[in-house]
Amino acid sequence: MKRVEQILSGDIRTAAKLIRDIDDGIPDSREVLKALYPHTGKAYVIGVSGFPGVGKSTLVDQMIQAYREAGKSLGVLAVDPTSPFSGGAILGDRVRMQRHGTDPEVFIRSMATRGYFGGLTRSTRSVIDVLDAMGKDIIIVETVGVGQDEVDIVNTAHTTIIVLIPGMGDDIQAMKAGILEVADIFVINKAEREGLEKTMHELRAMLDMNAQAPAEGKWEPPIVAAEAIKNQGVPELLSKIETHKSFLFDHASTHLREHLRKKAFHELVDTIKERFVAEIIHDLERSEKFKQMIDDLADKKTDPVSLCEQIMAERMKKVPKVR
Amino acid sequence: MKRVEQILSGDIRTAAKLIRDIDDGIPDSREVLKALYPHTGKAYVIGVSGFPGVGKSTLVDQMIQAYREAGKSLGVLAVDPTSPFSGGAILGDRVRMQRHGTDPEVFIRSMATRGYFGGLTRSTRSVIDVLDAMGKDIIIVETVGVGQDEVDIVNTAHTTIIVLIPGMGDDIQAMKAGILEVADIFVINKAEREGLEKTMHELRAMLDMNAQAPAEGKWEPPIVAAEAIKNQGVPELLSKIETHKSFLFDHASTHLREHLRKKAFHELVDTIKERFVAEIIHDLERSEKFKQMIDDLADKKTDPVSLCEQIMAERMKKVPKVR
Repeated sequence: MKRVEQILSGDIRTAAKLIRDIDDGIPDSREVLKALYPHTGKAYVIGVSGFPGVGKSTLVDQMIQAYREAGKSLGVLAVDPTSPFSGGAILGDRVRMQRHGTDPEVFIRSMATRGYFGGLTRSTRSVIDVLDAMGKDIIIVETVGVGQDEVDIVNTAHTTIIVLIPGMGDDIQAMKAGILEVADIFVINKAEREGLEKTMHELRAMLDMNAQAPAEGKWEPPIVAAEAIKNQGVPELLSKIETHKSFLFDHASTHLREHLRKKAFHELVDTIKERFVAEIIHDLERSEKFKQMIDDLADKKTDPVSLCEQIMAERMKKVPKVR
Repeated sequence: MKRVEQILSGDIRTAAKLIRDIDDGIPDSREVLKALYPHTGKAYVIGVSGFPGVGKSTLVDQMIQAYREAGKSLGVLAVDPTSPFSGGAILGDRVRMQRHGTDPEVFIRSMATRGYFGGLTRSTRSVIDVLDAMGKDIIIVETVGVGQDEVDIVNTAHTTIIVLIPGMGDDIQAMKAGILEVADIFVINKAEREGLEKTMHELRAMLDMNAQAPAEGKWEPPIVAAEAIKNQGVPELLSKIETHKSFLFDHASTHLREHLRKKAFHELVDTIKERFVAEIIHDLERSEKFKQMIDDLADKKTDPVSLCEQIMAERMKKVPKVR
């Protein structure tokens, strides 16, 4: 396929078009993705997540700068409706944080518009694959860090960075349930604010509690204090990312294999979620009984669980035969 | 079923147990939900959504107080990992915002722990059904307002309130894509802060732009300025909710029917999403070929789309027959 070759050679125009097609769910894009898939897995993927207002975009901007100075090419994907990156895209406006906008080695995309309605995780993974196939050395994915979508996206990254700010004690405790477990590195940004020591201490205590019996060869997430706007803490962050990369790629260990298998599993689950459900709903909507089904539900003549069981019985084969 | 009768009579202990079972995905709870379903649809459901830090919980607390003074019973569901309601629940700690905690007519639950991993929307709807079947007059659902999950939850409510604060211009623009469209009422909380007029103006301009040709009999979302902590703006908010309720229940119109059908459709889609995918993944994980499939994916010997198509061909019947 011509498109595949163009993307493998790093063609920005073709990649941008394909990403739009993925975002719009155009079926043709699936065939290109299939062909690109064997060429992925070379880029190093870094996830950056955190609540709105913690300064993720500023941090990402400084990371881009630092990686450029080290001669790396970058793909940046903002999956955050409050990010200036995606904000620009939504408004059809200029991207405000654009000091890297004219650098051909930095390719910035956003996935904000689809953020509210299904398929986000799947499309995000696909866009990461495109950036990867383009030959980018580093891919940075910025997400807003609340909810299941973000955890799923973050599962794709080699190194996941959670950004906090001083005084977020309550939020840290609330995040414990899901986000803490996926973090490889914590950044406490806006470190000049009151409460840095307290927040670092609380976070460390919670991590220690979570770890309980520290397993041999298990990664212990470091905490980096930063003031991204002044570029403080960014070199230390990059050095921690490098350390985590070495940990993952240590040939004597199985960490990378575990990461790849976990990623593969999530890719498959996401694809099943999207494709099966889309096909079933699509078929239902075309069927004559659909209007009646919805009316019956609205009138409480049936319930969603019974209706779903009926649809499953009609649509799925009884014996699971998986080759 | 004894449990069904107990919940219909408003028994708090049985309801609390059922909600835990739903949260834990215990299959037995499905049968109870089926039996409760015909008894739902009596409560008035209000969704309150917005980013962390806008003061949603304080607003909800004041709303509870006002509805109690009007003699209404309430169910409150916090689906927000940063909410003091759910924060308390996560920590096994006392619920901090507990002035209504001892009032038997106010039943407060939270769904924070499952927020990061699947099934959230489905479980939230089910818990709303339980509160509804208990005979609560008003159900308030608080969500954190970022991402698809929240929009899905909000689709369940009769009246959806989006809470903003002055100076959120950029965030409003970013939210445009999804949240603006689902809002029935906007509250600009912390109205004492600088930028109230500007934010109201920007929001109004965006709503007018969205509306374009204002359709006859279409609801135009009002904007309420509030200072929830001082209870300012709360009576006005309740009056707007009442106006919206009258709009929905106007017998000459089809608004309520549209709402019920939309809700029924989303209930069905959520159930399909959860049940089909869960069953397929469950079967896959038990199958002998599963490990090999994941290894092949991790080794890029196949791709998720091709693998999913293969699984679909094996699991789904070709001809959709929906009764």
